[in-house]
Amino acid sequence: MVKLVECVPNFSEGRDEAIVEQIVEEIRRVEGVKLLDYSSDKDHNRSVVTMIGDPKKVKTAMLNAAKKATELIDMRKHEGAHPRMGAIDVVPFIPVSDMTMEECVELANEVGKEMGDMGIPIYLYENAATAPHRTNLAKVRKGQYEGFFEKIKEADWKPDYGPEKMNEKTGATAVGARVYLVAYNVNLGTNDIEIADAIAKKVRFVGGGLRFVKAMGIKLEERDIVQVSMNLVNFEKSRIYQVFEMIKMEAKRYGVSVVGSEVIGAIPLQALVDTAEYYLQIENFDISQIIEKQLLE
Amino acid sequence: MVKLVECVPNFSEGRDEAIVEQIVEEIRRVEGVKLLDYSSDKDHNRSVVTMIGDPKKVKTAMLNAAKKATELIDMRKHEGAHPRMGAIDVVPFIPVSDMTMEECVELANEVGKEMGDMGIPIYLYENAATAPHRTNLAKVRKGQYEGFFEKIKEADWKPDYGPEKMNEKTGATAVGARVYLVAYNVNLGTNDIEIADAIAKKVRFVGGGLRFVKAMGIKLEERDIVQVSMNLVNFEKSRIYQVFEMIKMEAKRYGVSVVGSEVIGAIPLQALVDTAEYYLQIENFDISQIIEKQLLE
Repeated sequence: MVKLVECVPNFSEGRDEAIVEQIVEEIRRVEGVKLLDYSSDKDHNRSVVTMIGDPKKVKTAMLNAAKKATELIDMRKHEGAHPRMGAIDVVPFIPVSDMTMEECVELANEVGKEMGDMGIPIYLYENAATAPHRTNLAKVRKGQYEGFFEKIKEADWKPDYGPEKMNEKTGATAVGARVYLVAYNVNLGTNDIEIADAIAKKVRFVGGGLRFVKAMGIKLEERDIVQVSMNLVNFEKSRIYQVFEMIKMEAKRYGVSVVGSEVIGAIPLQALVDTAEYYLQIENFDISQIIEKQLLE
Repeated sequence: MVKLVECVPNFSEGRDEAIVEQIVEEIRRVEGVKLLDYSSDKDHNRSVVTMIGDPKKVKTAMLNAAKKATELIDMRKHEGAHPRMGAIDVVPFIPVSDMTMEECVELANEVGKEMGDMGIPIYLYENAATAPHRTNLAKVRKGQYEGFFEKIKEADWKPDYGPEKMNEKTGATAVGARVYLVAYNVNLGTNDIEIADAIAKKVRFVGGGLRFVKAMGIKLEERDIVQVSMNLVNFEKSRIYQVFEMIKMEAKRYGVSVVGSEVIGAIPLQALVDTAEYYLQIENFDISQIIEKQLLE
């Protein structure tokens, strides 16, 4: 089995293409790391980069990119609509294949420590958090760059790594480990938004539904139908087929049928394997039976 | 998209490991070609090698292996239980990803021509066949090595490439293109072999069932159940989920349930994607949304 980790750093620069390119180039030039995507938002003045590969190599690529970003981004001049606390705002590690969450937490600690040594105050979050109040990224980032000059002095917000004093130029960084997020939507054969909302409420965690599902009803104006739009925040525990079947079941009481579903963006192979295994009642399937998977070994 | 072709040459040597290793080594040392598997059978005195990769590189690996085999295998001394016509008995090319059958046929022609230039009479078969009577491998190979000294003189059996006279040392080779073969079995909640047989008959092509399905009933003694054992000879046309649902449907008339299924050996990713797409009613899915697939690009 080949170990694969995904890393999706967010950099606080989305307007100066030359700077973004220089940062991205640091990732591109590390062999064994695949740059899957990067995109900048001018209003947010922020860029999101997606890379994947062997954990050691992703670590190298991430640290090289961080070093470049500390040189090129100056938070004293940063303006943008998206909440941010630093030049390398947030660095999540996500297990994709043959990686445990514990290994991702360890990786977040290694990268956090080295970024701390670069002079950046580091906060570990989500599964890497060192205290419950640091789990949620929004709470960690609250107050933003401007507020951190005071926040960092509070006992509750002492950094996990790096200086205990704000870095004016780079700001602070949140480094974490989290599960892969699957964006999955189910379309209903009705244009009644109340039905989509009611089903979303039954399916999602907060409504008593599946633990790792966030859901809401939305209207697809062009198609004149409604949709249960979801984030599966742990697709290995709350699985796609469970979500799909539960929505079908709930839709029945309204005499509404499921007309389709869609996976938005990238999805780990395991999620599709789980689906095929369930519906075909496959016994003893091993993901390495998939030819394309063998090629990655 | 990355082009991937599989090639499964069968060599008429299964007893002398040193010879098999030298042939396999020719494949192993071509960069960009992955040796997925190789195994020898002493009774058959035959080795089956599975490789996959970029078509150009697979061609190189296959030709290098063929050259080595012509040096090391002497058909004048060959004995074995499996039908065979030459040292490099059969060379099928199989599209796995982003390859059309036409491209595989072209590849079979290129390899056939070069092997012909090595002095081996070449017969194109299956999708690469140049006449209907040459499609079926068993018919091409009929008479075997010993019979080819006469068969090659018949107008119907003039080789497609290479000399029109039998090569005593190497024999002749069948080079072809065919679809990927998926071995898929469905287990039934009964030990009545007649039920498995009856269902197999309804599902398979010869019984009026799905065009690209071969099926038979077999008994799983240890588990005291029966199984519909199948070869899906074109999984893109007769799909796994169709086969599975059809067996469930037929089993109903006997009050028998499907207790499980199994995929034997390797399977192309596309087969699982088709399955997930069907059951989840996924709209507009693109196989490149799968992270592991992106890594192969």
